[in-house]
Amino acid sequence: MPRIITLLTDFGYNDWFVGVMKGVITSIAPESLIIDITHNIKPGDIRSAAFNLMVSYRFFPKGSIHVVVVDPGVGTARKAIVVQTEDMIFIGPDNGVLSWALESTDICRIIELQNPKWFLKNVSNTFHGRDIFAPVAAHIANGIDIQEFGPTVSDYFKLPFPEPTISNYNVTGEILLIDRFGNGITNITDSHLLRTKLEKYKFFANSKFVGRIQQSYGSVPAGKPLVLKGSTGFYEICVNSGSAASMFNLEPKSPVTALLD
Amino acid sequence: MPRIITLLTDFGYNDWFVGVMKGVITSIAPESLIIDITHNIKPGDIRSAAFNLMVSYRFFPKGSIHVVVVDPGVGTARKAIVVQTEDMIFIGPDNGVLSWALESTDICRIIELQNPKWFLKNVSNTFHGRDIFAPVAAHIANGIDIQEFGPTVSDYFKLPFPEPTISNYNVTGEILLIDRFGNGITNITDSHLLRTKLEKYKFFANSKFVGRIQQSYGSVPAGKPLVLKGSTGFYEICVNSGSAASMFNLEPKSPVTALLD
Amino acid sequence: MPRIITLLTDFGYNDWFVGVMKGVITSIAPESLIIDITHNIKPGDIRSAAFNLMVSYRFFPKGSIHVVVVDPGVGTARKAIVVQTEDMIFIGPDNGVLSWALESTDICRIIELQNPKWFLKNVSNTFHGRDIFAPVAAHIANGIDIQEFGPTVSDYFKLPFPEPTISNYNVTGEILLIDRFGNGITNITDSHLLRTKLEKYKFFANSKFVGRIQQSYGSVPAGKPLVLKGSTGFYEICVNSGSAASMFNLEPKSPVTALLD
Repeated sequence: MPRIITLLTDFGYNDWFVGVMKGVITSIAPESLIIDITHNIKPGDIRSAAFNLMVSYRFFPKGSIHVVVVDPGVGTARKAIVVQTEDMIFIGPDNGVLSWALESTDICRIIELQNPKWFLKNVSNTFHGRDIFAPVAAHIANGIDIQEFGPTVSDYFKLPFPEPTISNYNVTGEILLIDRFGNGITNITDSHLLRTKLEKYKFFANSKFVGRIQQSYGSVPAGKPLVLKGSTGFYEICVNSGSAASMFNLEPKSPVTALLD
Repeated sequence: MPRIITLLTDFGYNDWFVGVMKGVITSIAPESLIIDITHNIKPGDIRSAAFNLMVSYRFFPKGSIHVVVVDPGVGTARKAIVVQTEDMIFIGPDNGVLSWALESTDICRIIELQNPKWFLKNVSNTFHGRDIFAPVAAHIANGIDIQEFGPTVSDYFKLPFPEPTISNYNVTGEILLIDRFGNGITNITDSHLLRTKLEKYKFFANSKFVGRIQQSYGSVPAGKPLVLKGSTGFYEICVNSGSAASMFNLEPKSPVTALLD
Repeated sequence: MPRIITLLTDFGYNDWFVGVMKGVITSIAPESLIIDITHNIKPGDIRSAAFNLMVSYRFFPKGSIHVVVVDPGVGTARKAIVVQTEDMIFIGPDNGVLSWALESTDICRIIELQNPKWFLKNVSNTFHGRDIFAPVAAHIANGIDIQEFGPTVSDYFKLPFPEPTISNYNVTGEILLIDRFGNGITNITDSHLLRTKLEKYKFFANSKFVGRIQQSYGSVPAGKPLVLKGSTGFYEICVNSGSAASMFNLEPKSPVTALLD
């Protein structure tokens, strides 16, 4: 069974960056299987990358190597780390991109990437995806123990996750991310709502009334807004066959409230 | 030889959706080979997805599994089906996305996807690509007989294909799709034209004169419009080194006529 | 070890073009490994494709087959070629797309693609990526000698590389390419500068002062411009956490000067 290496970056699809990372990986670990999560993270958007990783890593086979390169501090003193959990390996800059995924895992070891033996020669100051992260991922796929890459460190940088606040059963949250369909993914889950009264919540986004929780897009007419429990477990502000982001002017951090009738 | 699974969706390239489908497939069928057709179908554009599948499926090896997820009815009562033809397997919602490809095949069996044994646990109401279509495709790649997935059904939903009309050898058709280069792909083929008089047809798009059928883009100067027999067999409204969509304000369903001199 | 085939085209991500090329390749050479460099080259932008290939091909394993399809002359008398170098195989139209990469290689043989035995049947006049380049690449991956494809030719079309001019140690160059982050990649390298006085150069883009050469983005505050030695070896006009292309109105061929203090 091939070793999976996933890639999640802000390198986009217009340039050679991702292709070259795959060239480096394949040169070192030709039998690995590379899978793109996305490369269209907004440049430097650590929060969006952290969310993408958090909601996707668990769908890959045990032993998968998840490489995240959203790295506005590339070339500075920021650390680069590899984290081994019970099931997976995570690699990236220590700027929080890995942290939302790591919160729900059992961490075995954290290693700082320091040993240039495993990097490309002549490491650039602007493209550690090619020069450090890709070769390290490939060497791990080849079975190199992560201890080879540098010293153990005791912790990693944790990006604060924006938890909703609850008062009198009313929930005040925010938009985490706008997806391709214009759905506004909130930070509200079942854990914040009264499970026996889900139909009693009225959702508001940017102070405008959206609607109540429905079963599917088709529960309301085309063009009408609704609230759905999304496939990530987070509730989403949606419009059937339309864009909630457009209708409610949503962007990351837009306020969302769920008021109990 | 690895079993091919193609993916054709409207999930875009900005989010984790496609990556997660590949994670699910690879977890179940690690030896399969996944190939993207495109994920940039306009959200919910069943017609565009049907066209993309129709013009591409035959270029894949026999036994390929074609998964189409353009599914605005996800979570409603719409059926999900798998269709076995003599050469291929097709999987998708029963909303017409498969139908233009299926028209030219010999259908062996149509099965409705009903047996949750082969789905992910906890099927969401918004992401059957991950929870149903990906695991079913992977299980087929592993050799599971499609009868396992549910009952045989007798037919599938057929999206009407917009056939041109012919009157006095003049052809009235329409634009099916605008491609990345701004070419307007029409629904007119050799079967609608007099083969011995191809050079006698004058093409009009949105009632504006385009030109006659040429051999290649280079047959006219840069910036000038022309008509080419496209690589799909459909005639295309083109501009050499330019965008016909811009020059003639083309969009899907824009009228096109071919008048015999 | 699988044979690598890289793809670099202007086919974009909206249509079936790239997927179908992969279907054709996989039908002929199922054990090959296909890697995308990018498909978002601006339609017909030979210079951008030549640059992308030049800076990426060397990161792939020896024996890789690099297929470039940016081919505005498709269907005309322009030649299609395959070039064997000491380490790699290059395939594409003979319009210059391969030439910047080839400049730094030892060329063994150049063959013109003429023998239809190795093409798809019914070669179209608009999609040689599918009908000629993909099957030829796949047959090479299968071990077919390139002599089978047509006659040896003595040379290939060389796109002139825009070299900077130097006068009194001042360097006048230009922007080669804008990358996804808005960095302006110049044609200036260490070979044009006095190595012992790198900190003495002041860079100007579009006649506006940018700054001096820095170590990393983080060497200046967010939003401030700087000059970095890019990962390709070319100096780049940058803005920390911002777009230099926006700040300085950069586009390909915008003038850049480096003046020695």
